[in-house]
This record gives sequence, C-alpha cells and structure tokens, in this order.
Amino acid sequence: MKGHNIPSGDLRRIVAEIAAEMAAETDRGTVADYIPQLAKVDPKQFALVISTADGEFITAGDAETHFSIQSVSKVFTLALALGKLGERLWTRVGREPSGDPFNSIVQLEHERGVPRNPFINAGAIVVTDSILSDYEPKEALAQILQFVRYLASDEAIAIDPAVAKSELDTGFRNAALANFMRAYGTIIGPPEHTLGVYFHHCAIAMTTRQLAAAGRFLAFDGQLDPGGSRVISTRMARQINALMLTCGHYDGSGEFAFRVGLPGKSGVGGGIVAVVPGQASIGCWSPGLNAVGNSQLASRALELLTRRTGWSIFAPR
Amino acid sequence: MKGHNIPSGDLRRIVAEIAAEMAAETDRGTVADYIPQLAKVDPKQFALVISTADGEFITAGDAETHFSIQSVSKVFTLALALGKLGERLWTRVGREPSGDPFNSIVQLEHERGVPRNPFINAGAIVVTDSILSDYEPKEALAQILQFVRYLASDEAIAIDPAVAKSELDTGFRNAALANFMRAYGTIIGPPEHTLGVYFHHCAIAMTTRQLAAAGRFLAFDGQLDPGGSRVISTRMARQINALMLTCGHYDGSGEFAFRVGLPGKSGVGGGIVAVVPGQASIGCWSPGLNAVGNSQLASRALELLTRRTGWSIFAPR
Amino acid sequence: MKGHNIPSGDLRRIVAEIAAEMAAETDRGTVADYIPQLAKVDPKQFALVISTADGEFITAGDAETHFSIQSVSKVFTLALALGKLGERLWTRVGREPSGDPFNSIVQLEHERGVPRNPFINAGAIVVTDSILSDYEPKEALAQILQFVRYLASDEAIAIDPAVAKSELDTGFRNAALANFMRAYGTIIGPPEHTLGVYFHHCAIAMTTRQLAAAGRFLAFDGQLDPGGSRVISTRMARQINALMLTCGHYDGSGEFAFRVGLPGKSGVGGGIVAVVPGQASIGCWSPGLNAVGNSQLASRALELLTRRTGWSIFAPR
Amino acid sequence: MKGHNIPSGDLRRIVAEIAAEMAAETDRGTVADYIPQLAKVDPKQFALVISTADGEFITAGDAETHFSIQSVSKVFTLALALGKLGERLWTRVGREPSGDPFNSIVQLEHERGVPRNPFINAGAIVVTDSILSDYEPKEALAQILQFVRYLASDEAIAIDPAVAKSELDTGFRNAALANFMRAYGTIIGPPEHTLGVYFHHCAIAMTTRQLAAAGRFLAFDGQLDPGGSRVISTRMARQINALMLTCGHYDGSGEFAFRVGLPGKSGVGGGIVAVVPGQASIGCWSPGLNAVGNSQLASRALELLTRRTGWSIFAPR
Repeated sequence: MKGHNIPSGDLRRIVAEIAAEMAAETDRGTVADYIPQLAKVDPKQFALVISTADGEFITAGDAETHFSIQSVSKVFTLALALGKLGERLWTRVGREPSGDPFNSIVQLEHERGVPRNPFINAGAIVVTDSILSDYEPKEALAQILQFVRYLASDEAIAIDPAVAKSELDTGFRNAALANFMRAYGTIIGPPEHTLGVYFHHCAIAMTTRQLAAAGRFLAFDGQLDPGGSRVISTRMARQINALMLTCGHYDGSGEFAFRVGLPGKSGVGGGIVAVVPGQASIGCWSPGLNAVGNSQLASRALELLTRRTGWSIFAPR
Repeated sequence: MKGHNIPSGDLRRIVAEIAAEMAAETDRGTVADYIPQLAKVDPKQFALVISTADGEFITAGDAETHFSIQSVSKVFTLALALGKLGERLWTRVGREPSGDPFNSIVQLEHERGVPRNPFINAGAIVVTDSILSDYEPKEALAQILQFVRYLASDEAIAIDPAVAKSELDTGFRNAALANFMRAYGTIIGPPEHTLGVYFHHCAIAMTTRQLAAAGRFLAFDGQLDPGGSRVISTRMARQINALMLTCGHYDGSGEFAFRVGLPGKSGVGGGIVAVVPGQASIGCWSPGLNAVGNSQLASRALELLTRRTGWSIFAPR
Repeated sequence: MKGHNIPSGDLRRIVAEIAAEMAAETDRGTVADYIPQLAKVDPKQFALVISTADGEFITAGDAETHFSIQSVSKVFTLALALGKLGERLWTRVGREPSGDPFNSIVQLEHERGVPRNPFINAGAIVVTDSILSDYEPKEALAQILQFVRYLASDEAIAIDPAVAKSELDTGFRNAALANFMRAYGTIIGPPEHTLGVYFHHCAIAMTTRQLAAAGRFLAFDGQLDPGGSRVISTRMARQINALMLTCGHYDGSGEFAFRVGLPGKSGVGGGIVAVVPGQASIGCWSPGLNAVGNSQLASRALELLTRRTGWSIFAPR
Repeated sequence: MKGHNIPSGDLRRIVAEIAAEMAAETDRGTVADYIPQLAKVDPKQFALVISTADGEFITAGDAETHFSIQSVSKVFTLALALGKLGERLWTRVGREPSGDPFNSIVQLEHERGVPRNPFINAGAIVVTDSILSDYEPKEALAQILQFVRYLASDEAIAIDPAVAKSELDTGFRNAALANFMRAYGTIIGPPEHTLGVYFHHCAIAMTTRQLAAAGRFLAFDGQLDPGGSRVISTRMARQINALMLTCGHYDGSGEFAFRVGLPGKSGVGGGIVAVVPGQASIGCWSPGLNAVGNSQLASRALELLTRRTGWSIFAPR
C-alpha cells in the first residue's frame, strides 16, 4: 500500500476509530498553565479533522470548538512574510533545528542574535517584526488576521482579546528575547510593538475544522485547492513544509518526523496542523501537552493516522 | 509537474548538464585535511549517479573512482543495528537534531551522555557499540562490511586500511566522546574496541555508483528493489529516512531539507547518498566541503537535480 | 618587605612614577562606545589616587576629572542592599564567579534566573530591585545617591542625566536580562522601574579622588576611617571584599587577583576602585578598556603599584 | 582584633572546640563513591591541624590518619610546573574561575581546548603534561612525589596503589578530557601517559598533619619557614594563593572565599589545605562532601576557625 487515495469511507472509519481511542485515553498530558485562559481549558477535549483534496471535511470529536492556536500561527506569519520579503527574510533568521527548547535564549547569545529558525519563539518574533516593518502595529495585525481568514476561507476567525492581554502581561521571557535581539539589531522596531503584534497573532482562536482548512495551501503546493488560487509559490510551500518537518515541534521535531512522518506545526494551545502533500490537510487538537510542549493526544492520534493510512512523506510514490 | 516518473532520457540529460555545470564551478569548498589520506584527494573530482526503480544506473563524472565514505557509513550501521536490536536501540541514542556541530561534546554533558541522534559522531559510536556487544571487534567489523556489500550487491567493497590507521592515530576527539559516554554508561564495551570498529567502518571506500546502489533499500521501503529482497521493515526504512532528513547533514540538515527536499546522509569524504522514495537512490560525490562539513558541489548538484526533476518529498503526490 | 606602612614619601614617588609611565603608554585600549557619552571621552586621560589610613590623599594625573563610574556603582548598591536586607539578599543572587562575560544571559537560563553574583549585570539588577522593593523608583535612586555621597563624604556627587538617558534608550540587553529574571521571579517589580534605577546609578559621575574616598569603608573593615563611623558590619565588609576579588572584574577577575592581588571593582567608564585592607583605598581611572572590559591602564597601573609597594592580600602579615 | 598573632593557647582551645563541635555534627555530607577505595572510608572521621609560623603543630581529631589527597595534589604539581616552566605554563592553561563543575568538558569546547585554570581537572591534566614533557612517566611521577615529600619534610609520604589503579580503571571522563585536549594540541604527549601520572599523583596518601606541613611554603611567601629554604619565588607563591582563592574549590570557590576568606584547595578525598599568609598553614579533613564536591565539615570547620581567630586575607593589617 502506497498510502495514496484512501477511499473516503475508509478514511471516515479510521478517523472515527482514532477519536474513540483518544476519548478512552487516561494519560492526556498537562494543559499549559502560564496564562489563566489556557489553564482553564477542559483537558477532555479532542478533535481530528481531515480536509481532503476534493474539498471534503472528515471530522471527529470537538471539531467546532475554538481554541488558541498559539505557535501554529507562526506558519501563517512565515508564509505572509515570505510572500512579502522573499529570500531577504533569511538574512535575519536561520533554517536549522535549534536543539533547544522553544523559548531558549542560549542559542541567541552564541549566534549573535540570529534565531535558528522561524518556529522557535525568537525566530517567530523576527518574522513578526519583518511584517511590521512598513506598518503600524494595528495594520500589521489586521493583515495577519485577514491572511488567516483567507487561508481558511472563513471571515469569522478572530483574536481572543483576553488571551492576548494575558500574554502581554506575563510574557517577560518573550520580552527578554525581543530586547535581546533588538540589542543585536535582528529586530528593528521597538520591541514592545513587535511583541504586541506577536502576542495578538498567537491569540488567534480557531476551530479544528478551520485549522484543517487553513493548512490546505501547504498540502497543495501553495494553492488553496489543487489547481486553485495560489497563495505562495510552489517552492515556498515546499520550503515551509521542510521547515515544519525539521523544526515544527520544538524539541520534539525529530520525534514527530520519526513517528508521524508528515510536516506539521504545533502550539501550546494543543493544536497541530499537518499536511500530506497532494492528499490532505489535517487539523488535530487536544489541550494536554507532553514534556516538550506538543499536544500529547494530537501527536499520538497523528501517529495512529499515518500508520493506518500509510501516509508518510517518506513512503514510496 | 508532480516530479514522478521522469522519462529516462530526460533524467540522463539533466544529470549530464549538472555534471557539466559542476565541472565549471570554481568555488569547490575545502577538502578535509585532518588525515593525510583525505587531504591529498583531488578537489576537481565530481560524480553523480542515479539508480532508478527499474534498476538503471544513470552516471556522470568520476562515478567509478573510490572515495572514503566516512559518515555515510552511519546510515548502514544504523540499519544493521536497528535490524538486530529493534526499538531497544533508542534507549541509548536519541532522535532529535542536535543543533551543534557533528563532533560537539557539549550536548553530551548537558544530557548525561546520551547523544541526540545516531548521525552525530557520538551517536554513531553508540550504534557501533551496540553492534559490537555480542561480538569481537573483528567479527563486528566483518558483519558491517558484509552488510554494505549486500546492500550494494558488490563483493568488491573494502576498507581502506591507510585511512583507518590514520583515523585511529589522530582521532583524539572521537576518543574523548567515547570515553565520555563510557563514563555515563551509554557505551558498554572498552572505548578502544568501539573506536577501532568505528574508525574502520568510516574508512570503507566506495565508488559513487556503489553508493547509489547501497542506498536503494531506503528508496524502496526497506527492499533492495521494489518488491524485492527485504533488508529491514517498511517502518524502519521510513524512520531512517526521517532521521536522514532531520539529522543527516550535521549542522546543515535544515538547510539540506529546505534546499534539496530529500532524505540524505553526507560524509567528510565528500559523498552524499540521497533517496527519492519509490523513485530512485542517488549517489553524489565531490571532495570539497562547505563550512558545516558537507560536500559543497554534491549539495549544490542535488539542489539543482531536485529543482529540475521536481523531486521532493514535500511535493504533492 | 611585608608591604605594610609604606612611608608616605615613597608612596608619593611610586604614584608619580606610575602616572608618568602610563602617560607614555601608547596601547591604551579602546574606549567604550555603546553610548555616545562614553565614546567621546578622551582616551589620553589617567588618574591614580591613594587614600591612606591616616586620611591623606596621594594623587597623580586627572584626579579631579569626572567620569561615569558605571559598574563600580554595583559595589555601593551591594553594600546598601546588604545593610538593608542582610543575608536574605543571597536567596536571589549567588556568590560564585560566573565564568561568562558581564552581560551574558546563558548562565541565567541554565540556573533558572538566579544570577551567579552581584557584580555581573544580571546580579546587579537584582540588587537594585531589592533596594527598590519598598520604595518608588525616585526614592530608591535618591537613597543610593545619598549613600554614595556619604561614603565619599562629598555632597557634590551627582548623576549624569545624559548618560542615564542614553543607557535607557539603548539598554536592550539589560532589558532582556531584567525581563528574563522577571519571568523567573528573581526580579519582583516591573522590569522598567528596576532598569530605570539601575541605569541611573550606573550613570553616577565621580572624580578619581571621590572614588578613592568612597572605597575607604571597604579598606577599614566597614568603617569610614580606622575606628571611625561604621557603614556596614566587619563581616559584610570582608564578604564584599571577597566578592570583589572573585568576581569584581567580569571575566578578568582571576587575572586581576593573579596580577594585582587586591579586591577591586571595575566599570566600563574606565574606573577601578581597589582596597588594601587596613592600609589604603585606591581609585584609578583611564577610559580605554581591554578585551574583557576593564580599564587597560588602570589595571596595569595597579599591578605596578602592588609590585612596587609589596601590597597584596596574599602577602604575609 | 586584627586576627594576627593569636596566642598559642587560645589557638589550641579554638581548635579543640571546633573538633568537638564537628564530632557532634550529624549532617556530614556524602563520601565520594566513584571508586571503591574512597567509598569505604568512614565518614565519622575529622581532623584539623594548624602549622604555625614558629613551627608548632596544633592538632585535633584523626590527625595521623592517611587519606587520599586527590585534587589537593594539583597545588603541588602547579608549584612544581611553575618552578620548571615559569610564565610559559600560562600559554596552555588559563587563570580564570570556570563557573562550571570540576570535570566539565563544555568550557573546553567553547574555548578551543585551553582549560580555564590549573585546578579544574582539565587544567591539572595540562599541568601534569607539562611536567611530563621531558621525562618518562615514571620519572615524572617520582619527581612529583619527591617534591611533596620535600614540602612536607616527610619521606614517608607515598602513593596508594589501589587508589591509583581504581582511578585508571574508571577514569573515563578524565580520559575524555585528555583526549579532547590532545585533539586541540593543549596536551602534547600520549593521553594515556599523562593520565597515568595524573591518576597516580591524585592517589598520594597523606595525614592531615602532613598536609598542613606541605602547605607551609604557601603561607610563607614561597619558603618552607619564615626566612627559611625557598621553594618558589615570592611572586609565584602569591599567584598560587590568588588562584586558590578564585578557583580552589571547584564551583564553590566564591562561597569559600566569602565564608572562610583564606586561599585553599580541596580534594574529593575530603581534605582541604588553607593558608593564612605569614601566620599559619592549615590542614583539615573529613570525608563527607557537600553538593559541589568539597568536604562539608572541613569547609564548616575552617569557617568557624576564621570567625573565631579573625583570620582573613580581607581583614585590615
């Protein structure tokens, strides 16, 4: 089995089975608690949504419940920034796995303020700063939100103001990263502006269905549908997929590539977006996190999904 | 273009063009000079060989010249060790990119002697130690050599004794890594035994054609040919591909995934093996290295190859 | 010669000779340039002042020129904080040399936000925060300034507002340290309050004569004069001297102890205060810095001084 | 009280009192257990010996029991190497506190194989290598042993062969350090030769009385007695004292300077040698170690001793 073109009925059955197994799981990880808005989320929740090439959405679990996408937003800001700046973006942020936790400042000092990749916090702050460069914070934020709505074809997507406010109030570590990079000149604007936009785009709330929809452009080589509207170039889409594979899950990126075998990006809200190039975009969500900050059940569910479908970018084609 | 099933004639033309372009390159990197046997290799050399699903070998350049495979051998020892030990291997070595140079000892201290992955030197030494556990050094070495000959279907493959001798004489840094891990118990046997076998398998000499042949089992889901003799399980083959993608090029792994988009493994002898799952195994060789220790021209040639063929594990299928 | 009780005439001659030799030096280090106010200081300047047990001031060079004391102020804030909080201070800052540059953030991450000692920037920011705890920033700053005036018996000592303003505008790295520690709870108040006070006390301007006067309490076991007014306890005075010896010159502390053999504290304005317990307090100043951020000529002058006087805390008594 | 010239009777009383208090201590730290010979030492033991300027030995506790001096030997090899090589030694080893544990390899990688100071393991191995340079291992070892016997005026001092053998068998971490430095060229000879000599001089066994005697040359400015036979120059003696103060107690050096206020050197056998320049040499021993590897009771006893005698290099003279 090459893992392609799974019949829709089989896929529905597999998705339903996985959701049932996840519902029965007792070890669900630990909900992020650094801000009250995340800490109070019910850890019992789980959702899995597959958005296929022909536009079907196969859903299971709490697919219509909104959650904070947090670091998953970094994929969308990266796509927006790459579209605007192209290759120039890469003078300010690297493309290598960091080997350190997502909020580490050690590597920044050793490498003179240039973050390893756009998915660790420091790198994502640089990406945000690059989007901000020509705009007021409010304008930049509006652009980001509009871009995500466009990707998901859903104008209802919004920022959760309580989450954004909490992050601003307690985000001292990200403030440290931003000031540190400002000292090196990697960030150009006032750190508080960049941080304001950063905290707000991390506070975008989405449903798992919306997340699966928003990932489609990465599954279809930069187009919203196979042969449809182009968001970014084919090359950029593949490059973002490569970055998601090597750096998309913090210090658990190697493990995710090893177990799941698909490009993906996680957030501490418990969401993961993953793509099967040419076949499907996948949203998965469960609030409890594992030791390195990725959703425990969403990681597990995606591993089961690729085992049962044969989906893997490392499989023959 | 989905990048599949490139007509054989097109592939021959592309390979020939790339070889011609590489011959004209003036900035060829720097030949490794830490042992005399590597330092005296002519930097003008280049070879590119594609071994296709139907068994054809498309070659260009110095495809029949022997070179020292060095770290490329780590892929073969990993496959051998995984076949022997299965999942147990992963208690002694991790699966995450290290974010550090290939011979760094820093991460080892921070993580109590467990190397990040099997492709940095420390991790490969652990893999060698695991193969060695039940055998005398000579027997273990004979097994490794026999395994590589089997993979490449070529009994003529041999170890270059002068290279092995030089490495043993000057490999103080690897001796440091081995002793350090022995202090933590990650390595079980006498460090000098493990190092002896390690230095010898790094000193295997192969031609670029042999290297392309030896990579076939990773292109065809663990089988020497599509549907042919099975070397390792499908799952293990995909897992090794995932590890090559996230960790196969030292501190340039992210960059290789970003630019080339294929699983691959490089060595300081200038060789790279890469695979297009289901389509082809690729050997590429040029002795000059870039700043992070990967062959400069082989990296570049593989980037051009994937651009022109559309090959990428991140492309739709 | 035990190095005690050098006749006053000999001391005057030694001081004059050293000043003459320093005037002839051509390699004077590099003036700190991270803020304009420091960058424009004339590197030709040099001053050496010895304040003896009997109250005499032996001066040479530009002893009445004001300079920015910068990190030398950390000794005064430490004494003030120790006097207020006593041993409780040491729960928030360590007493070990850091082995890292003065503004490194790496150690902070490895040790969960607790700085190694009160003389690296992070530690001094914690000390400032501890002084601030019960006061408004303006009050805390007034206290610090009043304390320094008291130590030097000179009400004319003031803060250079242009220097303080410049530091506030460009101190992103210190802002990073403060926010980082706030994330760990080592700093309690709003980082911008603590930084404001910190930047202002670093901007205190003093003459070399005033600096020598202000160091007297550390030369005389906590008293302004032998047998005079007590500033801090005997034990605290000796403890601060110990900290100056092990940590007083950033990453050159071991070298200063090795070459000069006296407790001292340097600042990037080019000033150094050093003490010969029971004998003298010494101020020395020259704006050019060596590679680790200590005044090149002041370090050299103090080495010559201790060689010629026999002064050393490591000498027999 | 300036802490000088304590009457002999007072000193005897203080020493006896401290020994009695230490005998009553229940929290005695943890005996080093990395080799069997150290693990089996009775943690109940304690000794304190003061060797005064006039040659008197004031003793308490198990002053005649032999123990393994371990890292205390580094002071003696440093003195021997400095006497032979003079300033040239400092091209291969630094003079700064490391800020890292005694057996860390991290700093070595960051600073290209040059250890921070001669008292961390890596630095002491370099010192041993420098002594070895012109000699066979056996000759070098004989020289070191003869030097220690000379310092202590006691020909009975010997190496414990069982300890030396155990260290050689299990010293993989030190073998890692030596090989690592050999890779950088900081160590010149074969690592196994240098390690052999190093492990043997660490295995010198001494009584606390012998240790106090051996430290006299550092208390008396390089002479065995005030005005007596010169071992090293005055300057070198003071420099070694400075190094002991900044680096003599591993990662607890700052704390020892802060609490005890005397130059000293500890070993994992539980011994500490400390000096009061011009006044006394002190040996103290108790096998249980604190968290950073220094004798818990010996550190505590020396703190009590300096509080009660007023001895401190930071006190007025």
